[in-house]
Amino acid sequence: MTLRGAHLLSVSQFDRAGVESLLEIARSVEPIARRRQVCRVLEGAVLGNLFFEASTRTRISFGAAFCRLGGAVCDTTGFTFSSMVKGESIYDTSRVISGYVDALVVRHPERGAVAEFARATNIPLVNGGDGPGEHPSQALLDLYTIKNEFARLGKSLDGANIAVVGDLKYGRTVHSLVKLLSLYRGIRFYFISPRGLEMPVSICDDVTNRGHHLEVRHALRQAFPKLDLVYATRIQKERFSSEEFEGYSADFQVNASFLDQYCDTSTVVMHPLPRDSSHGAYDLSEDLNSDSRLAIFRQSDSGVAIRMAIFSVLLGVEGQIAKHTRDAMWWRPDLIGPDDGPFYRLA
Amino acid sequence: MTLRGAHLLSVSQFDRAGVESLLEIARSVEPIARRRQVCRVLEGAVLGNLFFEASTRTRISFGAAFCRLGGAVCDTTGFTFSSMVKGESIYDTSRVISGYVDALVVRHPERGAVAEFARATNIPLVNGGDGPGEHPSQALLDLYTIKNEFARLGKSLDGANIAVVGDLKYGRTVHSLVKLLSLYRGIRFYFISPRGLEMPVSICDDVTNRGHHLEVRHALRQAFPKLDLVYATRIQKERFSSEEFEGYSADFQVNASFLDQYCDTSTVVMHPLPRDSSHGAYDLSEDLNSDSRLAIFRQSDSGVAIRMAIFSVLLGVEGQIAKHTRDAMWWRPDLIGPDDGPFYRLA
Amino acid sequence: MTLRGAHLLSVSQFDRAGVESLLEIARSVEPIARRRQVCRVLEGAVLGNLFFEASTRTRISFGAAFCRLGGAVCDTTGFTFSSMVKGESIYDTSRVISGYVDALVVRHPERGAVAEFARATNIPLVNGGDGPGEHPSQALLDLYTIKNEFARLGKSLDGANIAVVGDLKYGRTVHSLVKLLSLYRGIRFYFISPRGLEMPVSICDDVTNRGHHLEVRHALRQAFPKLDLVYATRIQKERFSSEEFEGYSADFQVNASFLDQYCDTSTVVMHPLPRDSSHGAYDLSEDLNSDSRLAIFRQSDSGVAIRMAIFSVLLGVEGQIAKHTRDAMWWRPDLIGPDDGPFYRLA
Repeated sequence: MTLRGAHLLSVSQFDRAGVESLLEIARSVEPIARRRQVCRVLEGAVLGNLFFEASTRTRISFGAAFCRLGGAVCDTTGFTFSSMVKGESIYDTSRVISGYVDALVVRHPERGAVAEFARATNIPLVNGGDGPGEHPSQALLDLYTIKNEFARLGKSLDGANIAVVGDLKYGRTVHSLVKLLSLYRGIRFYFISPRGLEMPVSICDDVTNRGHHLEVRHALRQAFPKLDLVYATRIQKERFSSEEFEGYSADFQVNASFLDQYCDTSTVVMHPLPRDSSHGAYDLSEDLNSDSRLAIFRQSDSGVAIRMAIFSVLLGVEGQIAKHTRDAMWWRPDLIGPDDGPFYRLA
Repeated sequence: MTLRGAHLLSVSQFDRAGVESLLEIARSVEPIARRRQVCRVLEGAVLGNLFFEASTRTRISFGAAFCRLGGAVCDTTGFTFSSMVKGESIYDTSRVISGYVDALVVRHPERGAVAEFARATNIPLVNGGDGPGEHPSQALLDLYTIKNEFARLGKSLDGANIAVVGDLKYGRTVHSLVKLLSLYRGIRFYFISPRGLEMPVSICDDVTNRGHHLEVRHALRQAFPKLDLVYATRIQKERFSSEEFEGYSADFQVNASFLDQYCDTSTVVMHPLPRDSSHGAYDLSEDLNSDSRLAIFRQSDSGVAIRMAIFSVLLGVEGQIAKHTRDAMWWRPDLIGPDDGPFYRLA
Repeated sequence: MTLRGAHLLSVSQFDRAGVESLLEIARSVEPIARRRQVCRVLEGAVLGNLFFEASTRTRISFGAAFCRLGGAVCDTTGFTFSSMVKGESIYDTSRVISGYVDALVVRHPERGAVAEFARATNIPLVNGGDGPGEHPSQALLDLYTIKNEFARLGKSLDGANIAVVGDLKYGRTVHSLVKLLSLYRGIRFYFISPRGLEMPVSICDDVTNRGHHLEVRHALRQAFPKLDLVYATRIQKERFSSEEFEGYSADFQVNASFLDQYCDTSTVVMHPLPRDSSHGAYDLSEDLNSDSRLAIFRQSDSGVAIRMAIFSVLLGVEGQIAKHTRDAMWWRPDLIGPDDGPFYRLA
């Protein structure tokens, strides 16, 4: 499987060997992503970073990844795109911009719109999220983080116990992640959500058809076998009437007391971010911030290496990175955040 | 005529020799614009890309062109500019930003505002469109496309038959283009518009004073001599009451049936884009998308080379490009769009 | 005092030796800031230029400064930041973005928000203005300009006569500047403002405690000893009822007639910009535009060199600039603005 010149629209494009080969490239560019080295392999290339829906962190993560390979970035942000407002088709927009740049990242609020963009261009295009559809680079960085955490803990993904918690119906992130995890073997999945927000049946079927164990639950605080991973997502208040919502999110909050009671010292806690830290949101609790099991910032940090790997393979330069890399000469901290523990150190 | 250190505000700055020399430079940078080569002649230079009116494609085209020469871009987009809202004069804004960057592109919704910007700075400034005024880089890329298409077809611009169709009163693009075309000899122009949207008299006078043939028409479907070029533009619905509008745009739509009936296999069809593909807009028809006579994407692709040429001459580096250019090493498609025919291939 | 790896949040971080050492670095990078030379010492580095409050000129000045050192810039602008709208804490936002970039500039409408950003990251962060709080790079470029102007005039900052005029209560710029000036010796300060808009008592106390002379006035047109510097700021209309405002700003306008009557040929006139040039605003008058005592554009030009110096010391590359610098090869004007006099020439 080669991705040279391809579009990256969905995690369904990967088999296990393909995804592992991409993660291997991500691992090899970590010293660049972590600013120990500078790479100029894409010097002269230009990325069109088109965000028809605002998502500052994702936009900057893609942009920084392209810059770290030596390229330049043309951004567009916000909900309006002048020519599309004037009735221009996605076909025309995509084809015109493709004449200016070497690769595209497109985020769009409507499912399928990114694929429509992709059909109008031969230059590599990455789906940066299409509404309720897919967001493959997020699922890939999640898988990369899980593999890195498990490697550190001496664990295997095959046979792991994994709880996925929150709004599993509308959360596109968990849909794509579960598809990728299903490429592995013998996983015990616990899908835990309020009633009405269950994981779509097609994804559940896929999981069981591939021979994984699946348990669907409607309460978080129940006995588990030793959990290797808790993947928490936000329950979006706006999907409920206010009386329905009372209790829902509090009952599904992953926090220190949940970890103390149901997990052990080698459980990994992840979340796609952003998490809602406002009062009464009951998203992933801040009381875990100094708990080394919380991997959320190791997870977001991984986005740069994964996106560098994606651009490298789509543009076919993965074999030329090493010879266009040199040491960085500016100051960087040993740990990026003040609460980063030893697991943040680059091996 | 030298443009080194000059502002590019209007196509009126060019004589025939001057414009052809610019097109020659555009031709020489095509391998860079087409990503076969990488140029770093402007490495370290910074462009201020100031769009006081949103125009994503034009902004990205200018930005990508500056990047392709090795420079970096600082963008500003949208309708507000914080300090101008606080009562800052154009003079102050222009002079302050000029202290930060090496060249400016300015787009502004008001005619004359860009010239006011230009008067306050000695650094090169390009008019990126000033409301109903001028948009010289568009007219230059149009001329460049026409010359390239005619060269391919073995035709000369001198003596050509050219139809310009649509809203000729408010379309600044066609005003500037006709001025440039008038620098050539013996053209037969057909200006075809609804009544009330005719080409301004001053431009018509200029055309005839320079010895060209001019015919003003109010219907598209009439006999023509063999047309070498049909340049279509959008008729802007919002300029009409709804009953007036009925029929207008349908009657003036350039589509496959029009080409079949009134043109031949060597007619070139162009449009400044964006075209309105929404139902009932009757803009340039999508039924021509796979017709090789449709040159609209060859036209928009040309924007990068033309804008590279403009920056090169204004910043005086046109003679140094070759020695700062090397081969690109990343993957690029042979044809940018899935419907691009053989005429898209770089010679 | 070293700033390597530090955050720059406030001018209070500087003593006299520290600030002079920074100005010395700014002086050494002037040929790069003025486009005579190109520097690539930060090639491969990425700046996160986060403007949660719009400020185009400041954003571009920081961005251009980072580019002039060879780095790349990821911008975010405007009043919304998608994930913060979803309830994300400043801690999470700061830590996540810090995983993508090498340095941050943050502007935020609320006092203290930038410091909160800084506490969540170990990468260098520059306060780009936090509402009524601080804007240290502006105060540093002001001090740099004063020192340059005084050097040209053969004057010393120690013992100078300095008038600060306008809204001294809400103008954060003058607060930070006065703190920096207080590091010098024997200055005679004249703080001139409408009643109710006086300089905060804490700053006045600081000035007198450090042994400077201080006179608080409520009228501009009074006898002065020979003034070396008039620093004018805008009186913000919106802080007054309309009848109160009448006269206020006219009485406090610095213009040609004020300079003729109360100053001499060696007085320097500065303003943080933007100035309100709209009718009836009575901000610093445009009738001084061709008066060589007006240093406002020399002042704004200085922003690039100061911000280059800031990034250099925070990222620890100040000692490596010279060996990564070469001559620029593109055209640049001798004077940036058409009204720039000889004092704009680079020494």
